[in-house]
Amino acid sequence: MSAQDEQPLKVCSHVIFALQETRRYKVISVDNHHNSSPKALERVAQIARDNLPANASEKDKDSAEIDAQTADLTKRDEIKKVFEKYGKGGIWGVIHIAAYKAVGESTEIPLTYYENNVSATVYLLQTASEFDCTRIVYSSSATVYGTPPTIPIPETTRLEAHSPYGKTKIMCETIISDLCSAEPKRWRGLSLRYFNPGGAHPSGLIGEAPIGRPGNLFPLLGAIAVGAQPNTLKVFGNDYPTPDGTCVRDYLHVLDLARGHLLALDALAPESKVFDNATSDARYKAYNLGKGKGLSVLQIIEAMRKATGFEFKYEIVGRRRGDVPDLTADPTLAEKELGFKAKEDLDTMCRDLWNWQTKNPKGYDA
Amino acid sequence: MSAQDEQPLKVCSHVIFALQETRRYKVISVDNHHNSSPKALERVAQIARDNLPANASEKDKDSAEIDAQTADLTKRDEIKKVFEKYGKGGIWGVIHIAAYKAVGESTEIPLTYYENNVSATVYLLQTASEFDCTRIVYSSSATVYGTPPTIPIPETTRLEAHSPYGKTKIMCETIISDLCSAEPKRWRGLSLRYFNPGGAHPSGLIGEAPIGRPGNLFPLLGAIAVGAQPNTLKVFGNDYPTPDGTCVRDYLHVLDLARGHLLALDALAPESKVFDNATSDARYKAYNLGKGKGLSVLQIIEAMRKATGFEFKYEIVGRRRGDVPDLTADPTLAEKELGFKAKEDLDTMCRDLWNWQTKNPKGYDA
Repeated sequence: MSAQDEQPLKVCSHVIFALQETRRYKVISVDNHHNSSPKALERVAQIARDNLPANASEKDKDSAEIDAQTADLTKRDEIKKVFEKYGKGGIWGVIHIAAYKAVGESTEIPLTYYENNVSATVYLLQTASEFDCTRIVYSSSATVYGTPPTIPIPETTRLEAHSPYGKTKIMCETIISDLCSAEPKRWRGLSLRYFNPGGAHPSGLIGEAPIGRPGNLFPLLGAIAVGAQPNTLKVFGNDYPTPDGTCVRDYLHVLDLARGHLLALDALAPESKVFDNATSDARYKAYNLGKGKGLSVLQIIEAMRKATGFEFKYEIVGRRRGDVPDLTADPTLAEKELGFKAKEDLDTMCRDLWNWQTKNPKGYDA
Repeated sequence: MSAQDEQPLKVCSHVIFALQETRRYKVISVDNHHNSSPKALERVAQIARDNLPANASEKDKDSAEIDAQTADLTKRDEIKKVFEKYGKGGIWGVIHIAAYKAVGESTEIPLTYYENNVSATVYLLQTASEFDCTRIVYSSSATVYGTPPTIPIPETTRLEAHSPYGKTKIMCETIISDLCSAEPKRWRGLSLRYFNPGGAHPSGLIGEAPIGRPGNLFPLLGAIAVGAQPNTLKVFGNDYPTPDGTCVRDYLHVLDLARGHLLALDALAPESKVFDNATSDARYKAYNLGKGKGLSVLQIIEAMRKATGFEFKYEIVGRRRGDVPDLTADPTLAEKELGFKAKEDLDTMCRDLWNWQTKNPKGYDA
């Protein structure tokens, strides 16, 4: 289950890919298609069909099809209908990626963010619980670390957020954690704190198709290189305490990130050992999904220049309010307990992004 | 506007009294009557009618009547109906006291708490905003201080909570603060962090009528003294770092607390100066409502013994998980900026509580 993300199905479609790749899961996609294209679902199902072996069983074939439901998580009756279709115990688990995620916008319309991100999560959990679906993987974000006191950032860092968006992520983690504490024999939950996903599926069939000017660096560079956006770029600050003075982020390939969701979902199974060393009865944990390697804005621009052959024009301007110098994950815990490793490197991310971008210069609807 | 409190209308009914006492406000009570008696509203309106001067104007007389609406804040259409009745700009402000507040219960059914306390607040704010009602006084709690690092506790203390209930209070404060930051020209909000209310209206007409065994010390002592509960009492721990070893809390008369709401509501008026020294554009602040004087469990028992003549039997048992040694407010800011002062002393609280209890041994429904 997935979607309703502001990044149009980018993470969601890759997570669906990762689930279908195993042929162990049947994916129900729940999306209100706010800022996302249903075509992404058709494409990812196509990849799954193409990957079926010649001797695929009926079950294999079924795993390649997505049950695409249109529903809005803020509408209780719409969520309920999805669960009713499968009945009590009919849905094994939920991967909850549905959230608005534009930091700036969240400061302008906070109530919309609290409703769509927090109230919707409460409904989802209530409804899932009612239908005995008590496993959840929650999409959190590195933004829950605010300005982190230590780099690389371990999961034990105190949580703080500078924007309503970030606060909704902390609130939802809190709510899921409290639910797992209240019902330790029923509920199991994992929060995945995303660092910066880049790249796209190497097929070029799925990727990020933002509406308007992309807010994140990678897709923005791709859009500029392909000619969909003017060749102007602002680099906010080059006087940070980082190697080249520009902000440092931890980029990981979106397919690595997506496979982290699969590992997390698998870890909610009864035989999983991830909760064995928990400090309480509650079966809840949070993991960083990052590569553990910091890359600066200028390094990303240079890598995209190499991948695309395009000469980006950029201008160094003042620091942007709310930006943090360095957000690099400590990925040790996820590696140790989930077996997660962000394997792909920067050049692969750039290559795959560029492949997607050139094949879909106008996104899914071209 | 008020109610839906788990303490059956105790604070709400006294706040309504405080508003009606001024004859400057017409009160709309919004309550789902979860665990509260509509009779409290009849009684408080009766007090207002009885207090009308001989030459009362029609407007005065109207101010003594309550528009009692039954609505559930978790149901968006029910909230909307209340606002629709008065139209855009028809409701001047909201005092939002509606919340579940049993700490222990909140750890057992956290989703119910997050829905009723947080999601409902988001709906209320959205609906109020839609109807251009952009002033809110929010009932928060000293529980947002968790285990406070300094006593007495100033408002600048970092917030933390040990229970889902406490977390809902922090979340709602956060949401209101973010809304006031996003719309500084429209929204004004004040959070009131309650310390421990005691006593009752001196008329004995309104007071706390808990269903079952009261969870808080004062009403429990009253119920025991009046014979509604068996004469057994557990004092949790006498080895805390406090003068007599038992936990210390900051008790204030419920009428003082109620008048704090009136001061806060008045402070949302355009001519108010409470936001003049704010550090940002946002017109949002939080105030402690306490007396600034710590009283131990044993001191309360002794004061209630004097007031009732009843010999309470108590047993010292081990500390209770989650109890904090001392929660005493620094009341300076509310006094300076709101003109708030908790005037009544412990003996008055005990006397008024006992007056209520003896006149209503079984609460409102006797």
